[in-house]
Amino acid sequence: MTKAVLIQYAKMVSIAFAFNFTAMNTSAQTAVRYLSAKDSDPIKMGWMQGFPPSKDKLITVADGTAFQFPQIRWSVVNVQQLLPTAEVSRGLSAPSTLPYQLDKFIDKITFMPWGEKELMTWEASLWKNYTDGMLILHKGKIVYERYFGALTESKIHLVMSLTKSFTGTLASILVSEALLDENKLVSEYVPELKQSAFADATLRQVMDMTTALQFSEDYADANAEIWAFSAAGNPLPKPANYKGAEGYYAYLQTIKKQGQHGEAFGYKTVNADVLGWIISRVTNKSITTLLSEKIWSKLGMEQSAYYQVDALGTPFAGGGLNAGLRDLARFGELVRNKGKWNGQQIIPQQAIIDIEKAGNKEAFAKSGHPQLKGWSYRNMWWMTENNHHAFTARGVYGQTIYIDPTAQMVIVRLASHPIAANSANDAYSLPAYEAVANYLLNKK
Amino acid sequence: MTKAVLIQYAKMVSIAFAFNFTAMNTSAQTAVRYLSAKDSDPIKMGWMQGFPPSKDKLITVADGTAFQFPQIRWSVVNVQQLLPTAEVSRGLSAPSTLPYQLDKFIDKITFMPWGEKELMTWEASLWKNYTDGMLILHKGKIVYERYFGALTESKIHLVMSLTKSFTGTLASILVSEALLDENKLVSEYVPELKQSAFADATLRQVMDMTTALQFSEDYADANAEIWAFSAAGNPLPKPANYKGAEGYYAYLQTIKKQGQHGEAFGYKTVNADVLGWIISRVTNKSITTLLSEKIWSKLGMEQSAYYQVDALGTPFAGGGLNAGLRDLARFGELVRNKGKWNGQQIIPQQAIIDIEKAGNKEAFAKSGHPQLKGWSYRNMWWMTENNHHAFTARGVYGQTIYIDPTAQMVIVRLASHPIAANSANDAYSLPAYEAVANYLLNKK
Repeated sequence: MTKAVLIQYAKMVSIAFAFNFTAMNTSAQTAVRYLSAKDSDPIKMGWMQGFPPSKDKLITVADGTAFQFPQIRWSVVNVQQLLPTAEVSRGLSAPSTLPYQLDKFIDKITFMPWGEKELMTWEASLWKNYTDGMLILHKGKIVYERYFGALTESKIHLVMSLTKSFTGTLASILVSEALLDENKLVSEYVPELKQSAFADATLRQVMDMTTALQFSEDYADANAEIWAFSAAGNPLPKPANYKGAEGYYAYLQTIKKQGQHGEAFGYKTVNADVLGWIISRVTNKSITTLLSEKIWSKLGMEQSAYYQVDALGTPFAGGGLNAGLRDLARFGELVRNKGKWNGQQIIPQQAIIDIEKAGNKEAFAKSGHPQLKGWSYRNMWWMTENNHHAFTARGVYGQTIYIDPTAQMVIVRLASHPIAANSANDAYSLPAYEAVANYLLNKK
Repeated sequence: MTKAVLIQYAKMVSIAFAFNFTAMNTSAQTAVRYLSAKDSDPIKMGWMQGFPPSKDKLITVADGTAFQFPQIRWSVVNVQQLLPTAEVSRGLSAPSTLPYQLDKFIDKITFMPWGEKELMTWEASLWKNYTDGMLILHKGKIVYERYFGALTESKIHLVMSLTKSFTGTLASILVSEALLDENKLVSEYVPELKQSAFADATLRQVMDMTTALQFSEDYADANAEIWAFSAAGNPLPKPANYKGAEGYYAYLQTIKKQGQHGEAFGYKTVNADVLGWIISRVTNKSITTLLSEKIWSKLGMEQSAYYQVDALGTPFAGGGLNAGLRDLARFGELVRNKGKWNGQQIIPQQAIIDIEKAGNKEAFAKSGHPQLKGWSYRNMWWMTENNHHAFTARGVYGQTIYIDPTAQMVIVRLASHPIAANSANDAYSLPAYEAVANYLLNKK
């Protein structure tokens, strides 16, 4: 089969779930004029409406456009309808209550976007960033909640790479429980990886993404490894004469080393999939089952979640989670409270303390994230290292769980920005989060 | 493309959701020796276990085996992982309570299977019929509940043609609400069907399947229309050079007339899909949305349900529903109580009265269901016309909701029998249901 056929097949499921700030030329992309958030509202655009929808309103995976802007604004809320998925069960009990104490002033909070000269209001930032859902918890109460576009309180949204922080948290739990040892080599857990780059990487290096991998996520390059990875993970039947790997696990075994492990942070999705494999191997449970048992069924989640899977049923631990806005907030609040929920220790305190230790700032600085100065990366969480010790789970197109322990605040944002890389929205998000944190901290 | 390629593609999703007792030679199939229910237990067989599963434990849709015995025993509980699906939301409220009053004697109840000479116990019938889940409600209380194989209380199961009774009930509701008129022609609702067999059929004829259609569901015949229908509805990308219909709605327009409408009952799946189309056209809502609004979110269902969909997102109204055992029982109890739930009228009483009117026994007798003597068919429910006025929703491989108004009993069975046609299990089911009904009726 030709490279073009492979890329076409890979594109069916290719959500640009990972991003590389050096490889991705965001300024070139910004020069393109995109429809505004209001004009690209997927309900107003009429995607998939009508019985049947007319051809110009149709979204399917087959033609590779489902995850392109503006169609993506509908697709992120309807992944189950586009692809096979595996459930993370909420269990059968009643949902827990998140109390409300809405604060109407928040919309009026202003902040200075990075590199700009005029203040912007919080409310304006939501439109600027193509927000689908925004929720702010302060001291465990909902002070702000809004839905846009195709998202409602009873729908769930693809969270892309934010998924990695769930994988990292599960691993951190297993380390606390001594089921995993961060100093062990990957190949001690998964012998199938002995011929790959991961053979001599430690679990800690995988959890902090300081592995040295030959793995390009440059979507402009037809030879980038990301295409072979996406094709391997595509759950739809393989094209004729497909010769690549069948499934995520098979692909991971083919990754080659490039450099020395442990020296620099290198944000590569495949680390999360290796971590997912290790977790499943030691627990003999899929990520979906384990996440349900450890977290989803314990917090009174309102909705079951689900993962995109490959044709072997492997959940995409690097970017396949879909979940509801309030349920993501419940998880953020669990983390903020160091594993306690309604006074009960649901996951080990040590698992969260180990995340909050923060990572290696020097290793991070070598990674080419110029906007994220002084940050670090630990257990698949991004550590801002600001004076509030805020840390965050991040996914392309704007997916965020932002935890500010000092302000006792959790922000969850779901979004469908035209540009994948968060460098396109950070300037209008990160300073906005800090402004809200400061407001809440000083609130009487 | 060749016919073989078409059939291979159709088989990926071809659950024998419909059945034709004359076409299907069940005695020949019975001669094959199948693994017993115990030996074919999908958990014991290890399907999809391991990270990754070994090749001999793998179930995928691509090779067309997912819905063949014994793999089907795993697949019926995991459709979401195999195919794109659309959610029927339970909403976000707490589940309703189904009170328990378990009756241990039921396992010991005996009955005479049709055509046999020895009594069988209720418990033995469950194994005989490859039962995955069995629940009996008596006066609204759970008197019996069991799970087998891959099904648990927090999983959902494909219900195949039992789906049709949901489609029929939704239509009956809309007739009660005067949004549909049973005397109108199908083409008045859906002009796209003007060139098809359905053009001059009335809504009533569709609801009772007395349309005269050239539509064979004989799986042994490579020219049977069922293959083209399955291929049209397969949500996976179409094979190269595919020239058939794209989606269920497009296929329905190609069906030709064979005979006169209104004369004989002819059990053809496509009637339910035409009915689904009519429902969506008049309400401007998909079946999944309407079912959620009218029923799923109103009864305190424990789990969201979902439907298999085609590539245009059309839910398969003829056989695509997946739902939990207790939630199906809640629906059965709603119907038994003529639309009342916990004292509240959730759906119009008239919608259920219209089902219980029973259908045309003479039309039914012409249909070649020799085992179901004296039965009729109304609003996509099967009426036993026995002295208890029991009626039932039925799907291949043993899916059942059996409502006995006289005994105040609802039975729900989920199963994965090796043989699709219910003629293979009716002899060990229908007399068993009557025996339990008689026991409960006489219980002090």
